Amino acid sequence: MQQFDTVILGGGPGGLAVAYGLHAQGQRVAVVEKDLWGGTCPNRGCDPKKILMAAVEAQARSATLQSHGLNGVPQLDWPALMAKKRAYTSMIPGGTESGLKSAEIAHFHAAARFNADGSVQAGKDQLKATNVVIATGQAPRLPHIAGQEWLRTSNDFLDLDHLPDDVTFMGAGYVGVELATIANAAGRQVHLVHHSDRPLRAFDADLVQDLMSRLKAAGIDVQLMTDIVKVEPDGDEYRVTTKSGASWTTGMVFASAGRLPVIADLGLDQVNVATTTHGITVNDHLQTTNPHIFAIGDVVDRPQPKLTPVAGYEGRYVVTALTATDAVDPIHYPAIPSVVYGKSQLAQIGVTPEQAQRDSQTYRVNDLDLTHWFSYQRIEDPKARIKVVIERASGRIVGAAVLSMEAEQVINYLAFVIQQKLDSVAINQSILAYPTLASDLTYFN
Amino acid sequence: MQQFDTVILGGGPGGLAVAYGLHAQGQRVAVVEKDLWGGTCPNRGCDPKKILMAAVEAQARSATLQSHGLNGVPQLDWPALMAKKRAYTSMIPGGTESGLKSAEIAHFHAAARFNADGSVQAGKDQLKATNVVIATGQAPRLPHIAGQEWLRTSNDFLDLDHLPDDVTFMGAGYVGVELATIANAAGRQVHLVHHSDRPLRAFDADLVQDLMSRLKAAGIDVQLMTDIVKVEPDGDEYRVTTKSGASWTTGMVFASAGRLPVIADLGLDQVNVATTTHGITVNDHLQTTNPHIFAIGDVVDRPQPKLTPVAGYEGRYVVTALTATDAVDPIHYPAIPSVVYGKSQLAQIGVTPEQAQRDSQTYRVNDLDLTHWFSYQRIEDPKARIKVVIERASGRIVGAAVLSMEAEQVINYLAFVIQQKLDSVAINQSILAYPTLASDLTYFN
Repeated sequence: MQQFDTVILGGGPGGLAVAYGLHAQGQRVAVVEKDLWGGTCPNRGCDPKKILMAAVEAQARSATLQSHGLNGVPQLDWPALMAKKRAYTSMIPGGTESGLKSAEIAHFHAAARFNADGSVQAGKDQLKATNVVIATGQAPRLPHIAGQEWLRTSNDFLDLDHLPDDVTFMGAGYVGVELATIANAAGRQVHLVHHSDRPLRAFDADLVQDLMSRLKAAGIDVQLMTDIVKVEPDGDEYRVTTKSGASWTTGMVFASAGRLPVIADLGLDQVNVATTTHGITVNDHLQTTNPHIFAIGDVVDRPQPKLTPVAGYEGRYVVTALTATDAVDPIHYPAIPSVVYGKSQLAQIGVTPEQAQRDSQTYRVNDLDLTHWFSYQRIEDPKARIKVVIERASGRIVGAAVLSMEAEQVINYLAFVIQQKLDSVAINQSILAYPTLASDLTYFN
Repeated sequence: MQQFDTVILGGGPGGLAVAYGLHAQGQRVAVVEKDLWGGTCPNRGCDPKKILMAAVEAQARSATLQSHGLNGVPQLDWPALMAKKRAYTSMIPGGTESGLKSAEIAHFHAAARFNADGSVQAGKDQLKATNVVIATGQAPRLPHIAGQEWLRTSNDFLDLDHLPDDVTFMGAGYVGVELATIANAAGRQVHLVHHSDRPLRAFDADLVQDLMSRLKAAGIDVQLMTDIVKVEPDGDEYRVTTKSGASWTTGMVFASAGRLPVIADLGLDQVNVATTTHGITVNDHLQTTNPHIFAIGDVVDRPQPKLTPVAGYEGRYVVTALTATDAVDPIHYPAIPSVVYGKSQLAQIGVTPEQAQRDSQTYRVNDLDLTHWFSYQRIEDPKARIKVVIERASGRIVGAAVLSMEAEQVINYLAFVIQQKLDSVAINQSILAYPTLASDLTYFN
């Protein structure tokens, strides 16, 4: 039995933020990770995806300018791209672990499970702590269909030696759309199948439709309102069949229909931690139904998007909660930007245009086609559009949805505008480099 | 004789900001422009330059990823690039003029000159006004050397039907460096000659040296501490000779050694408006030595960088000054970002690292090599570096100099941080899209 102040389950961005934060405050902490040190984001999430996207973006930047100043479109080289990705990801688990070592933070590479006495079993080690923080994240969901065993996941895609000539994605959430975009940019035939007519459900429907048009124009076979019901081997390939009766052979089928909280083996029932199908139930202090157990990041059942910076933010909150001498305010989130990366990026922050339309007394929406604005015209962005949500009373921007080749930058500028509650006077009194994406801000409200 | 409240000399971004601003406040205004409606920025400055840069940037984004996921580097196609540029610039003068027409703002396409009675002669029209605002900008300086008549300027470069195989730039200020970068990216042999050892004098010396290394590595013949003293025709080409005795033949020689205020023909002596070699003398209300005459933008002798958004800012200030009923505070500028665009961009804002070093009691400098940070590694940026200036007492970022392929974005994020006086707590309480250039901000101080 080893005694700690706080034991953290999960060595990803959320768990590590808690571990380092509490350690810096003098707590004795231990981190338990059963899989790769570093967690999803750097090993098989945001970072490797964005490495692959670097090539996709560079190709797209050249492609739009063909006959407008450039000749020649570079081709994606899958083995080279994967080698580059691995040069990065191969360093993550070891680097993360040696970081913990040199900080002298106790860490256990084992599956964690609560014992009935509230202690944590980490392999052969039994860890006792005043508080436990669960940060075990999510993992890809494998849908229950005939031939489920032939399905691959985003984890596989991001570490694939050979990308077949024809690939199929089951589910057009952000994982499906991003990976389909990469495979398409690599010159593969891509099928993207989604059960409803609302791919990327959390994003603005009109802008999603614009993005889907871009994907189709790039040659992706987008199939909505249907679902894959069967996958069976067919020689070296697979035959997929949809609910609507369509059928084709494809080199690989990737399940990209959502992710599930990693909670099944934690023994949560032993310690009275309640869960839903969406994850661990927490109050607005990130406390589970067991007051000594907290949960943060992707594993929690909360409406905030499951994003690395949100996990870090929650991690820092828990550090404060577990070290403060006085009572701590409930967690309060700023407006949170989300981005679907790709040749065209789709981004969103704050009050959505849909929410604004439902409360048109409070908000108005500026729907601007940016395609012919200078910043987009100069790079021949095929389609750039923003919906800006403005609070009527204050005139302030409180939300936005953006589609463009550089939406990630625009949404981050708007994050400053919204989070700092800047009004149009403040924006006008800024001087920004010109002509840039940021200098357009003046014209958004 | 026509009577106005305010007559504005110059139909560029500064003058137009004043014209539209005063017009909106009910003033009777007139604008006089002798050259192209719209002024330097959209016709032969920032905008056309950034159109050409779109191809340079796209090429660079592909070039750095060769053998790291991409095969093939697109080539610049000069005639196509120029056609694209002209499709944009050809619309500017007409569009600007019809804008004035539909707003019913009086405008005169003529050279302006003060009469002794203070009225403005615009060709055959005599304009009388309570106040006059001078916004005539700057034009390229032609150095006095043997063969001056053979020199071309940035105006010529930005509208060149044929870009010769070998071109020479005289002066490595931002115009010289940017145009040399474009010509080099177009596959031309480029010579860049600068009189001192401090090209881009306003920027951080270390980062300039890093940039010069990048230019040399790209094949540009950078010659410092010398100057071109003679240009003479040599067949279809030109022979240039430098002070140090070097000599070569080249297809064209561009004077890129600074710009001069456009004031010679305004008759300023008639109306007691004092000038220096740097432009029109103004007080901190942008008033010239004649209290009824104001000056804004590039034509003024002020320490602020000569940039389009600065002219706009000054224009809006003068609108306030000329319409306020009470006394107006002196003009106060926020920290102003400047960018040298190119394959690698060099950007700066606020307190410079050099100023910080001179006052090390007040400031400290964080010199960070970003090359191996994720955001730069994923695009294989060959050299990324930032010097962050931090005010010791407050811990706040108050200035920065950045070199990277995407410095324009980073400097605009820092503009928000600096202008809004955000501290590290505020930055930490932001949630920004990850992993992006903006999400790095947390680690800068």
